[in-house]
Amino acid sequence: MENQNQMGSPIQQALHDYKAGLGHFTEQMPEIAGKYNEFTGACFAEGKLSLKEKHLIALGISLYAQDEYCIIYHMKGCIDQGCNKEEIYEAVGVTGAFGGGAAMSQAVTLVEECIKEFEGGNGSSIN
Amino acid sequence: MENQNQMGSPIQQALHDYKAGLGHFTEQMPEIAGKYNEFTGACFAEGKLSLKEKHLIALGISLYAQDEYCIIYHMKGCIDQGCNKEEIYEAVGVTGAFGGGAAMSQAVTLVEECIKEFEGGNGSSIN
Amino acid sequence: MENQNQMGSPIQQALHDYKAGLGHFTEQMPEIAGKYNEFTGACFAEGKLSLKEKHLIALGISLYAQDEYCIIYHMKGCIDQGCNKEEIYEAVGVTGAFGGGAAMSQAVTLVEECIKEFEGGNGSSIN
Amino acid sequence: MENQNQMGSPIQQALHDYKAGLGHFTEQMPEIAGKYNEFTGACFAEGKLSLKEKHLIALGISLYAQDEYCIIYHMKGCIDQGCNKEEIYEAVGVTGAFGGGAAMSQAVTLVEECIKEFEGGNGSSIN
Amino acid sequence: MENQNQMGSPIQQALHDYKAGLGHFTEQMPEIAGKYNEFTGACFAEGKLSLKEKHLIALGISLYAQDEYCIIYHMKGCIDQGCNKEEIYEAVGVTGAFGGGAAMSQAVTLVEECIKEFEGGNGSSIN
Amino acid sequence: MENQNQMGSPIQQALHDYKAGLGHFTEQMPEIAGKYNEFTGACFAEGKLSLKEKHLIALGISLYAQDEYCIIYHMKGCIDQGCNKEEIYEAVGVTGAFGGGAAMSQAVTLVEECIKEFEGGNGSSIN
Repeated sequence: MENQNQMGSPIQQALHDYKAGLGHFTEQMPEIAGKYNEFTGACFAEGKLSLKEKHLIALGISLYAQDEYCIIYHMKGCIDQGCNKEEIYEAVGVTGAFGGGAAMSQAVTLVEECIKEFEGGNGSSIN
Repeated sequence: MENQNQMGSPIQQALHDYKAGLGHFTEQMPEIAGKYNEFTGACFAEGKLSLKEKHLIALGISLYAQDEYCIIYHMKGCIDQGCNKEEIYEAVGVTGAFGGGAAMSQAVTLVEECIKEFEGGNGSSIN
Repeated sequence: MENQNQMGSPIQQALHDYKAGLGHFTEQMPEIAGKYNEFTGACFAEGKLSLKEKHLIALGISLYAQDEYCIIYHMKGCIDQGCNKEEIYEAVGVTGAFGGGAAMSQAVTLVEECIKEFEGGNGSSIN
Repeated sequence: MENQNQMGSPIQQALHDYKAGLGHFTEQMPEIAGKYNEFTGACFAEGKLSLKEKHLIALGISLYAQDEYCIIYHMKGCIDQGCNKEEIYEAVGVTGAFGGGAAMSQAVTLVEECIKEFEGGNGSSIN
Repeated sequence: MENQNQMGSPIQQALHDYKAGLGHFTEQMPEIAGKYNEFTGACFAEGKLSLKEKHLIALGISLYAQDEYCIIYHMKGCIDQGCNKEEIYEAVGVTGAFGGGAAMSQAVTLVEECIKEFEGGNGSSIN
Repeated sequence: MENQNQMGSPIQQALHDYKAGLGHFTEQMPEIAGKYNEFTGACFAEGKLSLKEKHLIALGISLYAQDEYCIIYHMKGCIDQGCNKEEIYEAVGVTGAFGGGAAMSQAVTLVEECIKEFEGGNGSSIN
């Protein structure tokens, strides 16, 4: 029942829609989707930069681009890689310095919602 | 004489123009410029994220935004904070995954030029 | 009754809101709205490029710009001009090569929804 | 009771979410949030340009940037500073000349909604 | 001879290129270009907002969009409509609050260059 | 000698810089560059849409995004695939309807330069 409720939250719904949409696109266009996955996989592989650092960079770009799916996806990536709240808020600050009020408005609403959502989803709180 | 030549390079010229422009703007609008500097100073203060990590996030956003002044400024920031080439190229990769060809075209030209410039400028090579 | 349900779908609602909003704007600002309609009409007139090709170009730009109203509007235009699914997905691929993950996230969700919606709306399936 | 209904409107909800989010962000990151408020406060201070003129400029940018929170916020700012409908629509026109259909689609939907909302909220009609 | 030098300045060159390009485009595509001119003409007609206010809005959008031709064009428009430096810098401030460092970097370089250029071009100084 | 002059034109220089930069990036980051090339290769493969149609879509997006490298690259692609001037100008028109003055300013300057350049480069005129 808790799962069912979570599925209905806007954040979980967006993650679900993106995953389902990408699955469907992959069935229709396996060549393009396959190469896209390999390319983004190579970009997000552990390297000299950690996965955590890569998701923080991607979060900054997503906020600047006002892309809700990517904000949610990389917020989840940051938290899965062990980011705490303060690290996320500092990344928001860097984006704010760059993108001003446009970036801040996304940050203080959707970032906040994601923190609450993924805390609940993991059954654990983010420090 | 070498300095004079470097001052004439497009990269050094852009850095110089930005610094001079900001100085001039500060004379005219001290209140706004002062508060802008304090705000961006707070965003780029050492915190839970290192200065290096903050400049890498800012580099990613700059590349996505195709903002030449900011690409140059944060490339300098990354290198001053000790980034090596591979870390910078990995940040470029993350941006490419997000911004596709638009981001890649900036990355493979201006990022490359900056690496050459700031190597020469420091009298030392970047690893 | 089926029509009534369709009116309530987010896609049909967005199309309706845009049309109603443009109608209202036209009443208030007839000169600007009239000239806007004439200008966009000239841009989207059949010419050396077919209407289908023009809507595919506009779809690509809309996806890159993450503009939901325009994605929906030009998805309808593409389908009305006889595009099949594969042509639409190939245009999505071009946009993905250019705009990376930001474009792909819009494409695999809203494009998919539009295909389902306009199939139903036309009483016919898209090949 | 009427207030309660208004709180539930999408426009009022967005304004509320932004305010609440900024409040929460301020608790977590008082230094960055404080400096951000001082900076934007200096930018939006009465000066050679009136507050009304500053909000009209900000509205134009918000529409071009397709940033819903900022469109709503500066629509409220314009109306609070005494803009009438015609002035707002003329600012929309300038944005349309610059940003074409992408800007127009936001303008004719969200701007319209905001005018209705803030008329109702003030208990007075906008001329 | 001074004129000739000015024609060679980057600012004058950009204005010239845009004018020449639009002239050439008009020869090739008279219908689209004609309707474009009528539409933008209607948007920039004197109305409830003055021409000065309209150019200030357009300057703000141009800076946010990092569009060099439009920044130059509307800087000229602002100055031709009697804007003084302080009004222009305040519009820059509003854009900075919205667009952060990306907007500021354009503002403090190209805006500054334009002020110098158009002062010299008019044979009079801007207050 | 004519070749040498052409190499020095801004258009040819930009194409050369992009190609050289991508080559260098490929040496440093073979995995990411290789997957990027495979992905974009799949997106630009002949399919239900012709290569010409795909380059026209990409040209529209490039103009909207104000990305000079990509405008030049896809202008070359359009012309190599047999586009005539009128088809290119019609694609510009579609972009203008969508992106307004920001798109038009790029279109009437850089598109024009590219047409002249690639005519000269091919030793043949574009109809």
